[in-house]
Amino acid sequence: MIKTKTKLFISLLLPLFVMSCQQLNDTTTASSASMATVQTGLRATGDLGLVIERATGQVKVVNHSNKDSLAEIDGLGDLSHASIVYSRDQRFGYVFGRDGGLTKVDLLKSKIDKRVIQSGNSIGGAISQDGKFVAVSNYTPGGVKIFASDTLELVADIPATELVNHPRNKDGSIKRSKVVGLVDAPGQKFVFSLFDSHEIWIADLSKPEIELTKYTDIGLNPYDALISPDGRYYIAGLFGENGMALLDLWSPEQGVKRILDGYGKGEKKLPVYKMPHLEGWAMAGNFAYVPAVGLHQVLIIDTQTWQQVGAIDVHGQPVFVMAQPDNRQVWVNFAFPLNDTIQVIDTKNQSLIKTLTPGPGVLHMEFTPRGEHVWMSVRDSNEIQIYNSQNFELLKKLPAQSPSGIFFTNRAHQIGL
Amino acid sequence: MIKTKTKLFISLLLPLFVMSCQQLNDTTTASSASMATVQTGLRATGDLGLVIERATGQVKVVNHSNKDSLAEIDGLGDLSHASIVYSRDQRFGYVFGRDGGLTKVDLLKSKIDKRVIQSGNSIGGAISQDGKFVAVSNYTPGGVKIFASDTLELVADIPATELVNHPRNKDGSIKRSKVVGLVDAPGQKFVFSLFDSHEIWIADLSKPEIELTKYTDIGLNPYDALISPDGRYYIAGLFGENGMALLDLWSPEQGVKRILDGYGKGEKKLPVYKMPHLEGWAMAGNFAYVPAVGLHQVLIIDTQTWQQVGAIDVHGQPVFVMAQPDNRQVWVNFAFPLNDTIQVIDTKNQSLIKTLTPGPGVLHMEFTPRGEHVWMSVRDSNEIQIYNSQNFELLKKLPAQSPSGIFFTNRAHQIGL
Repeated sequence: MIKTKTKLFISLLLPLFVMSCQQLNDTTTASSASMATVQTGLRATGDLGLVIERATGQVKVVNHSNKDSLAEIDGLGDLSHASIVYSRDQRFGYVFGRDGGLTKVDLLKSKIDKRVIQSGNSIGGAISQDGKFVAVSNYTPGGVKIFASDTLELVADIPATELVNHPRNKDGSIKRSKVVGLVDAPGQKFVFSLFDSHEIWIADLSKPEIELTKYTDIGLNPYDALISPDGRYYIAGLFGENGMALLDLWSPEQGVKRILDGYGKGEKKLPVYKMPHLEGWAMAGNFAYVPAVGLHQVLIIDTQTWQQVGAIDVHGQPVFVMAQPDNRQVWVNFAFPLNDTIQVIDTKNQSLIKTLTPGPGVLHMEFTPRGEHVWMSVRDSNEIQIYNSQNFELLKKLPAQSPSGIFFTNRAHQIGL
Repeated sequence: MIKTKTKLFISLLLPLFVMSCQQLNDTTTASSASMATVQTGLRATGDLGLVIERATGQVKVVNHSNKDSLAEIDGLGDLSHASIVYSRDQRFGYVFGRDGGLTKVDLLKSKIDKRVIQSGNSIGGAISQDGKFVAVSNYTPGGVKIFASDTLELVADIPATELVNHPRNKDGSIKRSKVVGLVDAPGQKFVFSLFDSHEIWIADLSKPEIELTKYTDIGLNPYDALISPDGRYYIAGLFGENGMALLDLWSPEQGVKRILDGYGKGEKKLPVYKMPHLEGWAMAGNFAYVPAVGLHQVLIIDTQTWQQVGAIDVHGQPVFVMAQPDNRQVWVNFAFPLNDTIQVIDTKNQSLIKTLTPGPGVLHMEFTPRGEHVWMSVRDSNEIQIYNSQNFELLKKLPAQSPSGIFFTNRAHQIGL
């Protein structure tokens, strides 16, 4: 739609202006070179991320605009099942290691800012709504520890329920319940589940004194949990029985309800480490897309009634079931030995539309903030693969040492992530 | 209703390239001074924002973690009705001025990076899903111009429909329809409405050639529009008749439907500048909270059926009706002369829970990304007020020159913002 006259007129002027722009660029690069330190520091944080490199105890700093790797940071300890949350300004990532290590990584300086070993054995954490507190859920000693997000000083220790009838710890102390499924919730709250004592607790940090609300007998052995993207529903999976435990945080006085009584029913018991990840639930519109237990199915749940309304047959036992930011697609990866494959569900027709085979050990996926690309960890081929979510084209591969979790900084602004 | 498809080739038009070079020249010479700012320390971009200072043609760079003001940037021209979108990395804000000015502001250097005058009279814009393109909707000449987000070079010009029966422009050229309600949509699309020719157009930039889809006879004089937070529904308000025009972007072949036939019915016609802002729609769960036209009410719409299911009496004619990120609260401001007041609706009970009187001329509100605070422009007392959304405590006041729009950088990661 160019008018020919304009085109001709311009092409005459073009060389002159190109020259002036060229000169301008030269002077600019010259001046910036003389301030190299400043220039390397001059990095925005909205399109960054960290990738867990489990085998080497490293994290890789990545940029999802340029689809490249900026730096490697090591010394993070045991990163199996590691997860990450981000500071409010998206400058710092808090890496929760399996060995109880809590590491604060600086994405602007590409180095570790602080690191503490806060327990013997931990399983994930969360950051408070206002970004001031980082909470870690621990197996041993069982409980939740809360740290100041800037200094990593311990500001609160919430020991879990004592297990009086259990054998004591080696040091003679009484065992406490393992804590799992720790998430942040609106109103400056943390919510978590106690595996051995069958409880859900809410820690309210909105006032100077932390207020604890405890729900007991919520169902046998909650092993993991999730919070809906709007922060309203906390849902714990039960290892000891069928169904799930639901807490409506808008009506906490109503207590914990049992939902999805059929969930897991009749299935051969899986070892707990083979139970589906619940953070992998995709909530799209009025439906939740849920990995079945021990079945090659993704279940469709109506989030108004919390009843199962459908099931989609898939390639294997689903592990992560992740919704595209616009909820149009749900991407699914699978448990060993079928973990070389990804399948994509169209939520409009609630049917499979694509099968990809990225390679051995597809452990995790992460959408870019507006969902145009998907990053994928392919552990056993030591690479990250980046796909276009619209036409499924493989856009780029990045080398990585046994990559697992991929976490982009936009999580800083999302409830429950 | 006719639906036609036409194709446009992305092309480089140079007059703007020339202007941006000259502008680049100016700002670069100025920039060495502001390098001092850069050297003082690293700055992340996740908790920053820009506040429009209409009277002085300035924007204020703010930080919502520290609740403070970092810098003032001037030279942005006429900022009445100005709006802002952000680059993918959250480093740059694109300010759409009323005078046709498009200004790219660098939040790390606190200075103008580039500025072009791209039309005589414009009304907002959007940034593409992948962050590569910035689109501006123009009144004169009527149409949409699309720029490369990095260089602000014009890459496509989409003139609006010619108005053959209207008086010509001063220069003798044929008038074209004003373009309003421009938003970005998933799949690398822009969607916008043509006020004078009663159309909705979709521009698809996912391939090298732009594909235009045009919906005609969608209703008289669409004056503004919105897109649902998931990017599925595009809804245009009609100035020339009652009701609204709905396009389901998941089923574009179904065309534009009429919804809410009662909307605006029986009300005394308002001048167009007094019609409620549609970006002010709050979508919470299955309900949309919508400013009534010429009534002191917020209407409750069921987004499954698009029928009105309720109404909440409020203090005045609502202007912006904004949902908290967790959808628990909806905050409402009002048209002159009742614009000194804010009311808060609890979406659980769908009832008013709080009335605040911040002062004269409360023009705009912005929630922090996870919703713990609300920032408010109080134009006529020349200040920004910051509230705790949980207990409604006034936390801080910041001086500002006739502040209007407040835009935080987390918008970079949200569809339609």
